[in-house]
Amino acid sequence: MSQAEREALIAWSAVAEPGDATAGRLVGLLGAADALAWVRASDAAPDAACLALAGGDPRDAAALRAGLDRWARRLDLADAPHERRARSVGARVVARGGDGWPGRVDDLGDAAPYALYVRGEADLEACFARSVAVVGSRSSTAYGAHMAAEIAGAVAEHGATVISGGAYGIDAVAHRTALACGAPTVAVMAGGVDRLYPAANDALLREAIGRGAVLSEVPPGFAPHRSRFLSRNRLIAAASATLVIEAAQRSGALSTAAHAAGMLRPVGAVPGPATSASSGGCHELIRDGRAVLVATREHALELVLSAPEWAELAPPDAGVGMQGALDFGDAAQRAVFDAASARAQPIEALARGAGLDLGATRAAVGALAAQGLVQQWKGQWRRGAASGANSAQHHS
Amino acid sequence: MSQAEREALIAWSAVAEPGDATAGRLVGLLGAADALAWVRASDAAPDAACLALAGGDPRDAAALRAGLDRWARRLDLADAPHERRARSVGARVVARGGDGWPGRVDDLGDAAPYALYVRGEADLEACFARSVAVVGSRSSTAYGAHMAAEIAGAVAEHGATVISGGAYGIDAVAHRTALACGAPTVAVMAGGVDRLYPAANDALLREAIGRGAVLSEVPPGFAPHRSRFLSRNRLIAAASATLVIEAAQRSGALSTAAHAAGMLRPVGAVPGPATSASSGGCHELIRDGRAVLVATREHALELVLSAPEWAELAPPDAGVGMQGALDFGDAAQRAVFDAASARAQPIEALARGAGLDLGATRAAVGALAAQGLVQQWKGQWRRGAASGANSAQHHS
Repeated sequence: MSQAEREALIAWSAVAEPGDATAGRLVGLLGAADALAWVRASDAAPDAACLALAGGDPRDAAALRAGLDRWARRLDLADAPHERRARSVGARVVARGGDGWPGRVDDLGDAAPYALYVRGEADLEACFARSVAVVGSRSSTAYGAHMAAEIAGAVAEHGATVISGGAYGIDAVAHRTALACGAPTVAVMAGGVDRLYPAANDALLREAIGRGAVLSEVPPGFAPHRSRFLSRNRLIAAASATLVIEAAQRSGALSTAAHAAGMLRPVGAVPGPATSASSGGCHELIRDGRAVLVATREHALELVLSAPEWAELAPPDAGVGMQGALDFGDAAQRAVFDAASARAQPIEALARGAGLDLGATRAAVGALAAQGLVQQWKGQWRRGAASGANSAQHHS
Repeated sequence: MSQAEREALIAWSAVAEPGDATAGRLVGLLGAADALAWVRASDAAPDAACLALAGGDPRDAAALRAGLDRWARRLDLADAPHERRARSVGARVVARGGDGWPGRVDDLGDAAPYALYVRGEADLEACFARSVAVVGSRSSTAYGAHMAAEIAGAVAEHGATVISGGAYGIDAVAHRTALACGAPTVAVMAGGVDRLYPAANDALLREAIGRGAVLSEVPPGFAPHRSRFLSRNRLIAAASATLVIEAAQRSGALSTAAHAAGMLRPVGAVPGPATSASSGGCHELIRDGRAVLVATREHALELVLSAPEWAELAPPDAGVGMQGALDFGDAAQRAVFDAASARAQPIEALARGAGLDLGATRAAVGALAAQGLVQQWKGQWRRGAASGANSAQHHS
C-alpha cells in the first residue's frame, strides 16, 4: 500500500462517519486517495460527476450527491494530523489492508472501517481471528454478571480474545473475566481512544490496553456520539462469534447481534427468567431464530467452534499425536505433513520445515491434498480435514 | 360400534399396557374383538399364527409372538367387569370411536388408547379440541409456579382446556389456575381414576372432576406404575399444543414434549435462569428446535393459535364488532351472519338464530360462503376467514 493511499484511508476515517456505506462504496470504487481527490474536486459539476460515477443510476447518484455534501463539509478533518495525534496519546494507526489489519472486519463490506486507532500491543489480526464478542446490557443484573463471567471465562480459557464495548455491566464483566483468565481482550470505543469511556472503567480499560487493546475507528478527539455507539457495535460483531448475555428489548447488544448475523457469524443468546426485562431481548433473538440458546459453557464453546473461521484455526494442540495413526506414502509426505499445521503457510515455509526442495514439497503436498491430509487456504497450505486438525475430536 | 367391539376395547385397555404399539397394530388390523379372540385362541400354533398375521415378516412376527405371551398372561384381566367397577367409583367409560371419544388422541396411532375412564361431566371431545397441555417439574421453583400460572391463565382465559398430569408442582399450578379462571381442566392419571394421585392433591383433583375431568386409560384398580407415568404423558400430549414450564434434564415433561412433537403439535418451553437445573430441560428443548421459546402470555397464545386444530375453532368472541365493517347483500344475509359464530352450528340452528326458514337460510349461507364470511366445517357452518373470526386481529 502506498503512503498516499494509507494517508487517504486515515483521512476517510475522519471525513466519513463510521458505517457510511456510500463512502465505503466510493472508496471501494476509486481507492481512498482518488475518492478523496474526487470529493475535493467535485465542486465544479457535482450532479454530473455523481451521475457518471453512479454509472447513470439516478438513485445511486442521489445518494452519492448527498454524501458529497456530507464529506465536503468535513474536508478540513481530512487534513488534520490524526496519526500524529494518535501517537501523542500512545496509539498507533492500522490502516485497511496494511500490516496488522484484522481482515475479518472487511466482512463489513462497504461499512468496513478505513483505519483503526489502537492503544495496546496486541496483534489485532490474531485477536480478531480467534475472537468472541461478549455483549449485553449496561444495567445488568447479578445473574447477568454471573453468566457473563461464565461465558467469557469459557471462551477466554479456550484461547479466544474477548471483544466488547468497554461499557458498564456485561461488557465490563466480559473484559474483566478475560483479563483474569490471562487472555487478551479488546475494547472497542465509540469515540477516540484518547478518551477512555466510560471514565469509571478507566482502570479496566488501561488493563485491557496492557494485555490486549482498546481501539476505535474514529481519530483521537472524536466524541462518542450516540450514533457512533451504534456503528461501533458492528466492529464488535466482526468477531468470530457473538454472545449476548443480557439485553432488554431495545438494547444496543441486539444491534451487535444483528450485525453479526448479517455477516453470517454464529450468534448465541443466554436465556434468563421470563420475568426479567433484562432478558427480553435475548428471548426475542432466540424465538426468532436469530440466536442459538446458550445456557452453559459447553453451549458457548460449541457455538464458537461452529464458526468456520474458528475451525480453520483449530486449537493450537489439534492434530498433535495424529501422525502415528496416518498412513503416509513416503518419507517426503510424512515430513511435509509434520511441517504443516492448522495455520496455513506458504509452500516455501513447508519446504523449509520439511527440509525438502520446492519440487519435492509440491509433489508431497499434491499427494497429501489428494488424501485430504492438507488443504489449500487462501493460496497457502494447512492441515486438512482428514488429518483431524479441524475436528474437535482427535487422539491425544 | 357394536357392543361386542366396545367390550373388547375395554378388555384391551386392561390386557395391554398403555402405549403397547404391537397391541395397537393388532387391534387396528383385526378389530378389538377379533384381536382378542385371536389372543385367546392362539395357544395352538402361535409361531405360525404370528407369521401369518405379520404377513410373513419375521421381525413383526417376533414382536407379535412376544406380545402374544404378554397379553395371554393377562387374559384374566380381559374378563374383569371394568365398566361396572368404573361406575361404582363414579366414572364412565368412553370407548374408542364411541360417543364423546376425543378423536385427537387417535393421532397417537398404534399407541392410542382403547378406552378412557372418566370422572367428571366434561365433554372430552370438546375439551381436547381446544386444549393446551401445561406440564413441568414436580419440584418446581417459585419462578416456575409463577410462570405456570401466567401461561395457564392466558390459555384458560382464551377458552382452552388446560390438560396436565395432576402432579405436584407445575401440574397442580396449571390445574388450579384453570379452575380459578373458570375454565375446564383435565387431569390424566397414570393409574386408575378410583385413586386420585397424589393424595395430597385430592381436593384439587376433586375440583377438576367437578369442573372438568379426571381420566385414565387404565381401568380402576390399576396401580400408577412408573412405566404408566411415562405412557400417560403421551395422552397429555394429545392436547392441541404443549407448553413446558420448568423441566430438568430428565423430567417426564420432556417425554410429553417429545410425544407432542411426534404428533406435529406445537410445543413451547419457558426459559429460566441458565443457573437453574429446573430449566435445563426447557433450554435443551429450545436449543434443539424441539420447542419454541415462550416467555410471555402473548408468546403462549401465539403458539397455541398456531395449532391448525385451534384455528378451526377460533376464540368464541372473535369477530365481535366486525359486522359494522362488512357489506351485506341483504337483511337475510346479515341476520344469518349475526347468528353464525366461531363455533360451527348446523344450518337449522342458524335458521333459528336468524329467524328465517331453512330455504332462505340456505340461500343466505351460500351468498355468505361465496364471500368467505361463513365456511363449512364438518358439515356445519361457522364464521369464515373473511369475517375476521380466525384472525387474532379484529376490530373491537
